[in-house]
Amino acid sequence: MALIVHKYGGTSMGSTERIRSVAQRVAKWVRAGHQLVVVPSAMSGETNRLLGLAKELMPNPSAPEALRELDAVAATGEQVSVGLLALALQAQGVPAVSYGGWQVPVQTDSAYTKARIASIDDARIRADLACGKVVVITGFQGIDALGNVTTLGRGGSDTSAVAVAAALKADECLIYTDVDGVYTTDPRIVPEARRLASISFEEMLEMASLGSKVLQIRSVEFAGKYRVPTRVLSSFTPWDIPIEDEAQSGTLITFEEDEKMEQAVVSGIAFNRDEAKISVIGVPDRPGIAFQIIGPVAAANIDIDVIIQNVSHDGRTDFSFTVHRNDYQRAMGVLESQVLPATGAARVIGDAKICKVSIVGIGMRSHVGVASTMFRTLSEEGINIQMITTSEIKTSVVIDEKYMELAVRALHKAFDLDASAVAAE
Amino acid sequence: MALIVHKYGGTSMGSTERIRSVAQRVAKWVRAGHQLVVVPSAMSGETNRLLGLAKELMPNPSAPEALRELDAVAATGEQVSVGLLALALQAQGVPAVSYGGWQVPVQTDSAYTKARIASIDDARIRADLACGKVVVITGFQGIDALGNVTTLGRGGSDTSAVAVAAALKADECLIYTDVDGVYTTDPRIVPEARRLASISFEEMLEMASLGSKVLQIRSVEFAGKYRVPTRVLSSFTPWDIPIEDEAQSGTLITFEEDEKMEQAVVSGIAFNRDEAKISVIGVPDRPGIAFQIIGPVAAANIDIDVIIQNVSHDGRTDFSFTVHRNDYQRAMGVLESQVLPATGAARVIGDAKICKVSIVGIGMRSHVGVASTMFRTLSEEGINIQMITTSEIKTSVVIDEKYMELAVRALHKAFDLDASAVAAE
Repeated sequence: MALIVHKYGGTSMGSTERIRSVAQRVAKWVRAGHQLVVVPSAMSGETNRLLGLAKELMPNPSAPEALRELDAVAATGEQVSVGLLALALQAQGVPAVSYGGWQVPVQTDSAYTKARIASIDDARIRADLACGKVVVITGFQGIDALGNVTTLGRGGSDTSAVAVAAALKADECLIYTDVDGVYTTDPRIVPEARRLASISFEEMLEMASLGSKVLQIRSVEFAGKYRVPTRVLSSFTPWDIPIEDEAQSGTLITFEEDEKMEQAVVSGIAFNRDEAKISVIGVPDRPGIAFQIIGPVAAANIDIDVIIQNVSHDGRTDFSFTVHRNDYQRAMGVLESQVLPATGAARVIGDAKICKVSIVGIGMRSHVGVASTMFRTLSEEGINIQMITTSEIKTSVVIDEKYMELAVRALHKAFDLDASAVAAE
Repeated sequence: MALIVHKYGGTSMGSTERIRSVAQRVAKWVRAGHQLVVVPSAMSGETNRLLGLAKELMPNPSAPEALRELDAVAATGEQVSVGLLALALQAQGVPAVSYGGWQVPVQTDSAYTKARIASIDDARIRADLACGKVVVITGFQGIDALGNVTTLGRGGSDTSAVAVAAALKADECLIYTDVDGVYTTDPRIVPEARRLASISFEEMLEMASLGSKVLQIRSVEFAGKYRVPTRVLSSFTPWDIPIEDEAQSGTLITFEEDEKMEQAVVSGIAFNRDEAKISVIGVPDRPGIAFQIIGPVAAANIDIDVIIQNVSHDGRTDFSFTVHRNDYQRAMGVLESQVLPATGAARVIGDAKICKVSIVGIGMRSHVGVASTMFRTLSEEGINIQMITTSEIKTSVVIDEKYMELAVRALHKAFDLDASAVAAE
């Protein structure tokens, strides 16, 4: 008997028919002798519907008291889901009970719309599991120390599921989703993309942060911090496939390098076209200048991704960074109105038509020449590299948006990730 | 400065446009210097949508654990409403905060789907009011001693509002609804029906229990128990009518007889066609027989309304009662399978095509001949009376359903309730 956490996305919960199918799948696991905790998302479209209603009443909520109400409204989507799923389980003859985040409770900080989980009380869950019940818990939400409802931000149910699994020291956390695992890259861009049977936690973290939408990045951080064995698998397989097959499907996130079955140098190619590039040209090169530039942008609550500062010459340097494309105009405004006058820099230029392409792989630690292969491959395709950043297990380049597909395909092939290449090994 | 509770029905909350209009009305009261607590219902249709989803997964929930989930799902409708209304108020520049029943908390018993309020903690509400905030509280729901969500049953938001007003010792509870007050009878049946400027608590209780749908009966009981000045008024008046006019509109429920401005003998005519009549014929007339008949019906969770037992002759009597029409077949089954064999009664007959028509008025206490006028009026219209029951301030008759409109119109006229009659006084 194992203690397993299942997480189901909005598509899986999209209709009562699909909810019934989720219940049948959970019932299969229960009948195989396991203890189950299930974290379902809101029914697909529901969170958007609720936020849409709120937006009609307040187009741009930003005050904490407004964000508090936004969270209270948005959290109801998951509350409906857990009640319906518990009913569907009971209708299958499986004892089940639902809890909202406040009932567990799932304690968070008070950062409405992007709260972080502080702790999860496992007492109530354990008591119900001991009584043979399936416990269905809302994802995406919790309560703060004052008893206000908070939400964790988009995709937060992944984080809730992993956090619950960590609190319960569950044997595995299964994230049922629209895709059947983690791929070497997006199969819509590269048809030869392969599913990975396993991926290291560090690689998954890079893939998530680089734009692969399979898992919310905070859920990966949680999985890593608490070493929660987490598996991403398809919610579209028939619910009645043999449980042994289901338990081995998808992609397992691992924590030991030697657990990894495929020791490719590069595990995957990630990409992201949600960013825009901004350069401050002719910045006086003096101590504190980076903060003078980035400080006002951060103060405007704009997240910054890649930052590049090149060596200076003649006492001047150029300073570049990327922001989310939605924040591009606002960031340009901050720089022109505040940063240029304050720093005496020459001018600000920007480009929203860029993309970031990254190669990710634990093997890069021990293999030289990986970045060099990346640059050569792009060069052979005539793609100009605008910015470069590296970490221990990834190399990212910023290029013109129009070359994105070409770059991803070429890199996928160059690092032997194509399915045909592996089959030939 | 007064402390006022407003309650808005589902139609008032039916769209973001209407929610904005509610916020404008509340803001008007705030700007006039009052402290406001607002209890909105779920957006119209929302509770039915949620219960419909649950029904698709479990057609006939009856186990407590299933009813618990049903309540958890149904309660979300009001949670959405309070958050949206708080946002709409904030957008008007009015500080506002929303609470779910569990946050106040509104303590109830554990009778899922028909819970009763045990207590309301006013600390949080008072603290927010003292800070100048409008407090928006979910109607229809609470939590039990174990922290489970409960609902109060259909129309429960009226009860929530009156209970909140009682807990806060509010100066007045204004129930904004689809009608502009309490009428002498349903204007759809009698176009001459008049709005009552005030009605005594006892009369309102009879009107509510007799099928007038203006207020949930439990809210009237609450208003009476705690002497909460409660006014029923229209939510369809423009939000910007002068506050003095609005404060005097609708119908005020009063507690002192001498407060009553119109001392009519009969205040209103109520009717109800949701009932069915059942008679057990040839019952041996012995002690305990009433319980032997009614006991099994009550045990089957069927509510019984009118009960009549006539004097016996030859040691046998006939025993009649009415039940809700939805329970008619089930009640007949219980009687035939359990009661007939146990009592030795001759047979059971029933009729679902009946209706109950009642005259209600505090004046009946001191005026003789009121019932007699009722019977004469029906007789003159050729309407046969099947059952009669009386209380201190009402007389009800059960008649053939097809005569309902005719009976209501004739009685309305006979007791001088027509608008034209009053105008001529």
